[in-house]
Amino acid sequence: MSQGATALVAHSGGPTAVLNASLAGIVDEARHAGVSRLLGARFGIEGMLAGDFVDLFAVPPRDVEAAARASSSALGTSRRPVDDGDLERVMKVCAAHDVRWVFYTGGNGSMATADRLASLAHQAGRSLAVVGVPKTIDNDLAGTDHAPGYPSAARFFACAARDVGADNRALSGQVEILEVLGRNSGWIAAATRLACRAPDDAPQLVYLPERPLPLGRLLDDISRVYSRLGHCTVVVCEGQLDEEGGAFGADVRLTSRGPLATNLGHRLAQLVAARLGLKAHAEKPGLLGRSSREPSRDLDRDEAYRCGQAAVRAARDGASRVMVTLERTDGPGYAAVTGTTPLDRVAGVERRVPLGWIDESGGPLPPLLDYIAPLVGDVAPDVVFRG
Amino acid sequence: MSQGATALVAHSGGPTAVLNASLAGIVDEARHAGVSRLLGARFGIEGMLAGDFVDLFAVPPRDVEAAARASSSALGTSRRPVDDGDLERVMKVCAAHDVRWVFYTGGNGSMATADRLASLAHQAGRSLAVVGVPKTIDNDLAGTDHAPGYPSAARFFACAARDVGADNRALSGQVEILEVLGRNSGWIAAATRLACRAPDDAPQLVYLPERPLPLGRLLDDISRVYSRLGHCTVVVCEGQLDEEGGAFGADVRLTSRGPLATNLGHRLAQLVAARLGLKAHAEKPGLLGRSSREPSRDLDRDEAYRCGQAAVRAARDGASRVMVTLERTDGPGYAAVTGTTPLDRVAGVERRVPLGWIDESGGPLPPLLDYIAPLVGDVAPDVVFRG
Repeated sequence: MSQGATALVAHSGGPTAVLNASLAGIVDEARHAGVSRLLGARFGIEGMLAGDFVDLFAVPPRDVEAAARASSSALGTSRRPVDDGDLERVMKVCAAHDVRWVFYTGGNGSMATADRLASLAHQAGRSLAVVGVPKTIDNDLAGTDHAPGYPSAARFFACAARDVGADNRALSGQVEILEVLGRNSGWIAAATRLACRAPDDAPQLVYLPERPLPLGRLLDDISRVYSRLGHCTVVVCEGQLDEEGGAFGADVRLTSRGPLATNLGHRLAQLVAARLGLKAHAEKPGLLGRSSREPSRDLDRDEAYRCGQAAVRAARDGASRVMVTLERTDGPGYAAVTGTTPLDRVAGVERRVPLGWIDESGGPLPPLLDYIAPLVGDVAPDVVFRG
Repeated sequence: MSQGATALVAHSGGPTAVLNASLAGIVDEARHAGVSRLLGARFGIEGMLAGDFVDLFAVPPRDVEAAARASSSALGTSRRPVDDGDLERVMKVCAAHDVRWVFYTGGNGSMATADRLASLAHQAGRSLAVVGVPKTIDNDLAGTDHAPGYPSAARFFACAARDVGADNRALSGQVEILEVLGRNSGWIAAATRLACRAPDDAPQLVYLPERPLPLGRLLDDISRVYSRLGHCTVVVCEGQLDEEGGAFGADVRLTSRGPLATNLGHRLAQLVAARLGLKAHAEKPGLLGRSSREPSRDLDRDEAYRCGQAAVRAARDGASRVMVTLERTDGPGYAAVTGTTPLDRVAGVERRVPLGWIDESGGPLPPLLDYIAPLVGDVAPDVVFRG
């Protein structure tokens, strides 16, 4: 890029615990990469369309550092669907501000938008490099070992499963349902199994939405655990469906990514109470699982930062139509390096947990837990005095 | 107490983030107070009735330390109602084990049980000292500045309000309802206001259940905030009632302490969507708010430990039918010392937030926030780049 040109960063989709760290990585690296001006779109596509930008080089470095430690998004983001007309408008805004590089953070839907923008710019003969920066707590993004945001959310729910499970163990006599995030994929649900340090530790039952869950089987499973232990903690994913593709009679709302139950845990607790005659509770930390600042992982924050840096370096080196990836290195300990993959290989592709990593009853198998464990880190065990 | 006699500790009611710290305080102090044997009742009254005890002096000190840092209850606890017949049985079990001191942790209902046990023992001419140890996240226990467990739960929800509020601010265009614990009292709901560092910070609306909340007023309030900011985060307490004493049409379950809505936030989100035509979400961290290990406060853990120690010292000094209290000292900084108060002054008394500390619309007034602030500690602000 010629000295004096401008770069733009925009977010798409829900915030995470470490999205701001990716932003900080972009800001810090852009200062060294010949960028004269770095624009941050306020509220993602909305800011790109309206020319509503933050001059990121004018933000005091200590504020950028503070943001990197905070969850949510300092710039704001958007879930607004984007069509070609919008992208034509974005190209005009980019031309008006002499924008040559666009960094677009998001999941697989956002990468489709980034890919389409790059394609339209190429067709129009515009010099506009588009680099995707991975971000999704659901971890359903292809082409990368995992997505920044996932380790923090997975750790949040693993700790939550330990803690509400320990509460339920201590009071005994009831069934606890913990509803977790993840939409159609069970990467987060599976992580809660890492809270089990001893055979009967909570969560005793974990279901991944990749397999349908007949209500009768769920009730049988709960009944069996409850009979043995006198209590039972169950983890279900918000997108879990029964064998008929229904949501167990829960309320469903239409989202930008399809229908989704809004009260699945509550509904299942009602069914457990009615059908099994047991006391049943449900908790739904919901968005707190992606937005909580406290249990977010240093590993996740560091990787998110490095993904931001890598995006700038990719653009500097002449790449476009790529997404930054994390690649796990071989070796006894966990380590990951950044790489890139073509945007059209990840655009719109939903990576669910492979069925070979899920047991017949819907629970996570050891290879899946081996994959997740270093991302989540150590989950200290529940402490019980057994006498 | 004569050398060679036995003491007993039992928990009652829901676990907290720091209940184990009170237990550790009792264990450590009992070693110095001439107690030869310290029995821990498994699952509270259940263990007292069945003689199911843990020999707490046989638990390795490092396990006691590990418990003190963990949430939930290492011994287990119980919500089982207790009648005089049960207490007669408890006295027999105590006599069989030569128990001279009973330490009973819990809230106002549990203190009524402790008071009744002391009264029956006195009538029967038995030498049995009963000392209550305060414990309730709801903070509705009289006679003490606050109850151990409350600071951690209050901090959890203050951070949660900041985090889901920041998420909602970043995505914009929707209403976020955060349902918090507290039953009939607004001590926890009020604490979420401490997340507001700037005038428009989340949570924009906070309601304490001490004042009824007409649905029409809630919708007007949300509508006004949303019109101005384009988003709105609302905190409601699980026990909030409307002006007719109803729970806004939410599902209600009967608990040991009366009826309680199980899905109030979800129900309000549905009403906001239907009546105002706005996107609305609800999160219910629920029991995670009392059981989460991560954001529990050192202050709370330290005070809980000291309450356990003080209970043993009170018994050693010949006290009975008292509950340990925390008393805030005068001075510019926060500090608290332990004291005692007669059990019959706190037994069954529900301390709700004084109406003089609540504004007309149900929100917390400055004296209430001044009371809570040192208990919750600093809540780092949301970070926003405004351009």
